[in-house]
Amino acid sequence: MKIKKEVTIYDIAKELNYSPSTISRALKGHSSISKKTTKEIREYARRMGYRPNSLAASLRNNRSNTIGIMIARINRPFVSSLISGIEESARKEGFNVIISQSNDLYANEVNNAKALYDTRISGLIVSLSMETKKLTHFKQFFDLDIPVVFVDRVPKEIETYKVIIDNYSAGYKATQHLIEQGCKRIAHFAGAQHVNVYNERKKGYIDALIDNNIPVDEGLIINFDTLSFEEGEKATNLLMEMQNPPDGIFSSNDTAAVSAILTAKKRNIRIPDDLAVIGFNDDPLASIVDPGLSTITHPAAEMGKISAETILEHLKLGNNKKKKSHTYILSTELLIRESSNRKKKVRNQKSGVTKGLIEEINLPASKPPALQ
Amino acid sequence: MKIKKEVTIYDIAKELNYSPSTISRALKGHSSISKKTTKEIREYARRMGYRPNSLAASLRNNRSNTIGIMIARINRPFVSSLISGIEESARKEGFNVIISQSNDLYANEVNNAKALYDTRISGLIVSLSMETKKLTHFKQFFDLDIPVVFVDRVPKEIETYKVIIDNYSAGYKATQHLIEQGCKRIAHFAGAQHVNVYNERKKGYIDALIDNNIPVDEGLIINFDTLSFEEGEKATNLLMEMQNPPDGIFSSNDTAAVSAILTAKKRNIRIPDDLAVIGFNDDPLASIVDPGLSTITHPAAEMGKISAETILEHLKLGNNKKKKSHTYILSTELLIRESSNRKKKVRNQKSGVTKGLIEEINLPASKPPALQ
Repeated sequence: MKIKKEVTIYDIAKELNYSPSTISRALKGHSSISKKTTKEIREYARRMGYRPNSLAASLRNNRSNTIGIMIARINRPFVSSLISGIEESARKEGFNVIISQSNDLYANEVNNAKALYDTRISGLIVSLSMETKKLTHFKQFFDLDIPVVFVDRVPKEIETYKVIIDNYSAGYKATQHLIEQGCKRIAHFAGAQHVNVYNERKKGYIDALIDNNIPVDEGLIINFDTLSFEEGEKATNLLMEMQNPPDGIFSSNDTAAVSAILTAKKRNIRIPDDLAVIGFNDDPLASIVDPGLSTITHPAAEMGKISAETILEHLKLGNNKKKKSHTYILSTELLIRESSNRKKKVRNQKSGVTKGLIEEINLPASKPPALQ
Repeated sequence: MKIKKEVTIYDIAKELNYSPSTISRALKGHSSISKKTTKEIREYARRMGYRPNSLAASLRNNRSNTIGIMIARINRPFVSSLISGIEESARKEGFNVIISQSNDLYANEVNNAKALYDTRISGLIVSLSMETKKLTHFKQFFDLDIPVVFVDRVPKEIETYKVIIDNYSAGYKATQHLIEQGCKRIAHFAGAQHVNVYNERKKGYIDALIDNNIPVDEGLIINFDTLSFEEGEKATNLLMEMQNPPDGIFSSNDTAAVSAILTAKKRNIRIPDDLAVIGFNDDPLASIVDPGLSTITHPAAEMGKISAETILEHLKLGNNKKKKSHTYILSTELLIRESSNRKKKVRNQKSGVTKGLIEEINLPASKPPALQ
C-alpha cells in the first residue's frame, strides 16, 4: 500500500508535454502513436529509470491515490467526524481525500459522482442524499472495479460494502429510556421515511411502545422533511397545543430536539418533569443547551475508519481474493443528560450533583429488519 | 459561461476509447497520431456535430468544469456557509465543487494541492491552514494560469485574488461595544498571530483600548493555539482567578466565547453584569447558549459567492482582459445578544422583552493595515 516514489507515466507526460495516454500507448508500441514520438518517449523513459511493470494495469485503471467522499451536507458534526475517521486511515497509507456535498439534492449527487469519476479516484465513500432513489450514477464506478462503500444512509438495492449503525436498536432504546423515566405519551420526530436511518429509528420507537403495552398514537408521530430547527419549533408548538399533549419526545436528530427544548422553555414547560426529550447524534449543541440534551451517540469516526480501510483492503487484494460486498453494523450508546433524566435528577439533587450523569448502555448490535 | 450541451473532445474520447489528448491531436492534425486514427476521429467528430472552436484552449488548459476548495476544517459554520456560497455560484454555471481539508496541517495542505492539481480543476479557492508559512505548493496552479482565490486566511506574500473581511474594524468595534457597555478591564482571546485574521482582530482590540484611554494590560491578552472549547475553559478559569479579574472578554471566535460563558456560570459569575462576553462568527452555538452570545457576523456565503465568481470571470475573459489580482474587503456586523447587553437589558426588562435586541452597525470597510 506504500506509495513508491517511482517515475510514472504521468511524470514522463508532464516532462515531455504529452498526455499520459500517449506515453502509455508509445511504451506499449501502439500503432496510433508515430514512430518518432514512440522513440522519443521510450528513450526518455529508459533514461529516467521508468519501470514498465507499473503499466500492468490498464490506463483506465491507473487511478490516483485519492479517495472520494460524497455526502449530503458537510455542516453536520456526524459528517465531520466521519470524514476525520476516513482521512486518518487514508493518510496513513498515503492516500488523499476529496469531498463533495449534494445538499441533499439528487441532481447534485449525480453531478458530483461524474466529477469524482473524472478525477480518477481510487475508491468512493457515499452517504446518500435525502432525495436519492435511483442509483444508476454509481454504475460507472462498479464497471471499473472502483470500490464503493455506502455509509450511514445506504441503499437497499445494491450489494456492495456498507457501514451502518443499528438504527432500529437505537430507536428502541431511546424510547425504552423515556418509558423507564415514567413517560406515558411519547411523541416521535420522524425523518424522511424512504431514508433507511429514519425508517429504522421509527420502527424501533413503535416496537418499544408495543412491547411496553403503550398504544401507538399516529397523532404523536410528526413527519419532518429535514429535521431542521424551524421544523422542530413548529412541531413542538403543535404538540403542546394538543388537548392531551405528550410527556416525552424522541427526536430523530439533535437539532430538532434542541429546538423542542427551547420552544418548550418559552412556553414555561418544565424539562424533564413535564416533558422529557431525547435526541440523536450527540452534536455539540446537545451539551450546550440548558438543560443538556440526552441523546444517542454514533461511532462516526469509527464508521469512517472502517469505510476507508475497506477501500484500501479492496485495492490491496488481487481480484480473486476480493470480497465484493459486506455490511458492517456498529452499535450505538444511550447518553443521558438532564433533558430526560427524571429519576436521576432526584438522586443527583440529594447527592449535590447538579449535572446529569452520563450512563452508557451497550446493546448487542443486531441486523436491522431491512437488511435481514 | 453557460455550459452548452455540445459534443466535446471528452465525449468523443469516451465513445472511441481514446484519450482526450489523442482526440485533440487528431483534430489538430498532429503528427504524433497515425493517419488511420486521425481519419477515424475526424469522421466521428463531424458526424456528431463537433464544433472545433472549443479546441481554442490548449490541451493543458482543458481543465474539468470543477472548482477545488482547500480549507482548514470543514466542521466550522463559517466554512460551510462559505462553501454553500461557492457552490451556489458555481452550479449556476454548470461547475462542480470538490473540497479538501488540511486539518490545519501544512503537510496535508501540500498533499491536497497536489491531489486537486492532478484532478485538473478549473480554479482553486483556498483558506490557509494555521501552520502554513511557505506557499510554493501553489506555484503549479499559477504556472498553468489556473486562477487561485485566497479567502479569509490569506497570505501577504502573493499578489493574486483575495476575499477577506475587515478584521481590524471588526476587532475594534467588538471592543468599543464592550467599552460602551461599561467594561473597564477587557480581556482578549487571541488566535495564532501569524494568521492574518487573528492578528488584525487583536490590532483592532488594542487600538480601541488606546483610543478610549484604557491601558493595554498584556496579562489580559491570552494567546490561544486553536481557540478550542477546552482552551476557552482554561483561559477563563485563569482570568477569573486573577486578583483583579476582567469585566469583559472579546474572544476571536464563538467556540472559546461560549466556553467562557459556561465556565463563568459554573463559577457563579453573572453574565453580562459581572462579565460581558463577545465572540466572533455567529455560529449556531451563539444563539443556543444561555445567555445568548453577542458576536461579529461574517458575510461568509457572500465571500464564497465572490470567490467563485472571480474564478468564473477569470476563465471567461481572454488573456488580455484578465485581472491577475484583486483584494475584496467585506464589512462585518455587530450582533448584540444578552451576553454583553448590560444597558439594553434594563431597557428590555422594562418593555417586557426578554430576548436581546439585534443591532446592526455597519462601519465602512477599510483596508487592514497589513494590506495597505
